[in-house]
Amino acid sequence: MSELRGACIIGQSGGPSAVINASAYGAIRTALDSPVITKVYGAAHGIKGVLDDVLYIMDEEDPAELELLKYTPSSALGSCRYKIADPDVDDTDYKRILEIFKKYDVRYFFYNGGNDSMDTCNKISKYMMKVGYECRIMGIPKTIDNDLFGTDHCPGFSSAAKYIATSIMEVYHDARVYDTGMVTIIECMGRHAGWLTAAAALASEMGAGPDLIYLPEVDFDMDKFLADVTSIYNKQGNCIVAVSEGIHYADGKFVSEAEVQATDGFGHAQLGGLAARLANIVKEKTGAKVRGIELSLLQRCAAHCASGNDIEESFMSGKAAVENAIAGITDKMVGFECDRTNGYVCKTKLFDLTSVANYEKKVPVEWINEEGNGLLKPFIDYAMPLIQGETGMKKENGLPRFAHLKKVVAK
Amino acid sequence: MSELRGACIIGQSGGPSAVINASAYGAIRTALDSPVITKVYGAAHGIKGVLDDVLYIMDEEDPAELELLKYTPSSALGSCRYKIADPDVDDTDYKRILEIFKKYDVRYFFYNGGNDSMDTCNKISKYMMKVGYECRIMGIPKTIDNDLFGTDHCPGFSSAAKYIATSIMEVYHDARVYDTGMVTIIECMGRHAGWLTAAAALASEMGAGPDLIYLPEVDFDMDKFLADVTSIYNKQGNCIVAVSEGIHYADGKFVSEAEVQATDGFGHAQLGGLAARLANIVKEKTGAKVRGIELSLLQRCAAHCASGNDIEESFMSGKAAVENAIAGITDKMVGFECDRTNGYVCKTKLFDLTSVANYEKKVPVEWINEEGNGLLKPFIDYAMPLIQGETGMKKENGLPRFAHLKKVVAK
Repeated sequence: MSELRGACIIGQSGGPSAVINASAYGAIRTALDSPVITKVYGAAHGIKGVLDDVLYIMDEEDPAELELLKYTPSSALGSCRYKIADPDVDDTDYKRILEIFKKYDVRYFFYNGGNDSMDTCNKISKYMMKVGYECRIMGIPKTIDNDLFGTDHCPGFSSAAKYIATSIMEVYHDARVYDTGMVTIIECMGRHAGWLTAAAALASEMGAGPDLIYLPEVDFDMDKFLADVTSIYNKQGNCIVAVSEGIHYADGKFVSEAEVQATDGFGHAQLGGLAARLANIVKEKTGAKVRGIELSLLQRCAAHCASGNDIEESFMSGKAAVENAIAGITDKMVGFECDRTNGYVCKTKLFDLTSVANYEKKVPVEWINEEGNGLLKPFIDYAMPLIQGETGMKKENGLPRFAHLKKVVAK
Repeated sequence: MSELRGACIIGQSGGPSAVINASAYGAIRTALDSPVITKVYGAAHGIKGVLDDVLYIMDEEDPAELELLKYTPSSALGSCRYKIADPDVDDTDYKRILEIFKKYDVRYFFYNGGNDSMDTCNKISKYMMKVGYECRIMGIPKTIDNDLFGTDHCPGFSSAAKYIATSIMEVYHDARVYDTGMVTIIECMGRHAGWLTAAAALASEMGAGPDLIYLPEVDFDMDKFLADVTSIYNKQGNCIVAVSEGIHYADGKFVSEAEVQATDGFGHAQLGGLAARLANIVKEKTGAKVRGIELSLLQRCAAHCASGNDIEESFMSGKAAVENAIAGITDKMVGFECDRTNGYVCKTKLFDLTSVANYEKKVPVEWINEEGNGLLKPFIDYAMPLIQGETGMKKENGLPRFAHLKKVVAK
């Protein structure tokens, strides 16, 4: 394939993570170092920055600040949740993107995000091919939800998993400190896939985790749940439960939204998050002291507790996207292929954007116990290697020193 | 003062912290190393373990496991919230404690806790003097609330403050990632004193903290709060707020419990925590996307983010309690005296138990801005040195390796 000279754009999209900036830095650094990439732009708020012609010139940034992106959570370039139209229905956005690509001689486009972002990336890629504009387009995966198809795991998941397991181990110690009983219900993110909640099982593996874990992969039964909790509480005087925000009844209704379906008279709608809601129900049922804890945004931005492996793999995925594009590859997402048979080896692997976009990968049911309230060894074997290693975060005044970008806008 | 040979008991009481075990370890290690202390007991669940005759023999523990207590959150010996009677009204408990002290030849008693625990410690100390039983009794302070009288600060506060500032810096980055606006309300612990919530100002000092901070030291005004938030949200498109769980109206009613007192028609009682409650009100008022985050137990058990200074000072306070008692001192609490004029120097200082018990130290109003919604430089100068240094926590499988105690019960 012939050498393609031109500028590149890197954009970030979807919900942020602790390491999406590490991926971006992998792409930015590699692009800056490449002789064929003439200029490196960061799109402000993902594809919206392209549509609005707001591009930051990465060449103008202080290299030391850029390097801090490895340890800076959230999307430093800004993110968006913009759903791009089907080009056969409305190609306005695509024409505009082409116009901007031509304006800045953009020949490389790297898009860093989850399912929806890979869909955007795929549509742009196919459009550029269709209109014959030579541009190499690569997806760089990111999602704490870990639900992208094909890849062994997604950058961002491992760090969130490490934070969840660590925090639950700490809560475990706190929640059993008194000689009076307590039930603790911890709510993790994950609307459709239970990967993050499953990470709580890593804490159990270390002897300080939940007694019960409920994922959206299994239909939720309130009576069964109350029986599970009561049984453990009665036996050991305390009980720790991890639940996914996306648990739902057999009819598909989210437990966080539906009328409570217990048979014992809790028929009233309740405000508050799922953890608070389940805590109230358990309290009424058992009379136990109950505490609901929602890990909320904390689990996706806790860079101070990021996985070292995740940081390095995220960087590697961004780097591989640029290297492969320069080598002539286009229309792919960089994912991971891992070997756990003899230690842990993670390599990048390319996936067709079409195959990735809009498919959701869930926790295999074979990895969930028969009772539907815990994880089995295959999950532990899968997830434990991912959370190894610590962050190299720089500190200033005992607090994180995050990247400060100048964000010089291209004219 | 003559040498006093005999056993010692160490007890932990009240809400746990990330470093209360570091204090306990300072006392246990020093007692184990002392030739005059014949046996070292840990009371199960504080004073209840004494009353119930459940004492763990610390001499039987593996020294390496004991050392891990420096990095293990919560109260390893177990805690209690047992309120001991006034001995002039009912001396049953005191007689029982004396009986246990005599049974095990206990001549040293170290009690590790907050306000109520210092009260317990004080009452036992005075009783033993009154009945003429020679026993040296020392309080070792602990409370994330930082509200103990006399001492510069309390072990446990600094680590919680570091966690709060770190987490809020991370949430700050996450909460402004989209180009659509958002209001984020973060609830910190502190029922009567606002120290923990004030720690959010350390994040602001680093350029990534709340725009507004509300403490219980200032009467809360819902209309003023809504005006504050709306003004900032309209100006910059987002707003981050830190609130103490203990904020209250001028009539003393907690905002988390009272009917909402805004003038614009929110008169209905709401379920859920304070953050969720304020989030709902702000959402109705501004139409903004709002997220409420309760830091909950996480802020008091986050040993992975503990302050190195806090760990060392906690150890030092436990050590000083034992050393002073062996030297003949009794009826005191070990506190800190700090010099910040030329760097930061922290030394232990003894306080009369009587003066400490049951007084609450609040954030000085001179440290709060005139608007009542932010902290001033004196608070930053006070708190910043406390959060310096990192934990030396050991890891196993990328997760915390906490202490495993055998807890051999004395017969």
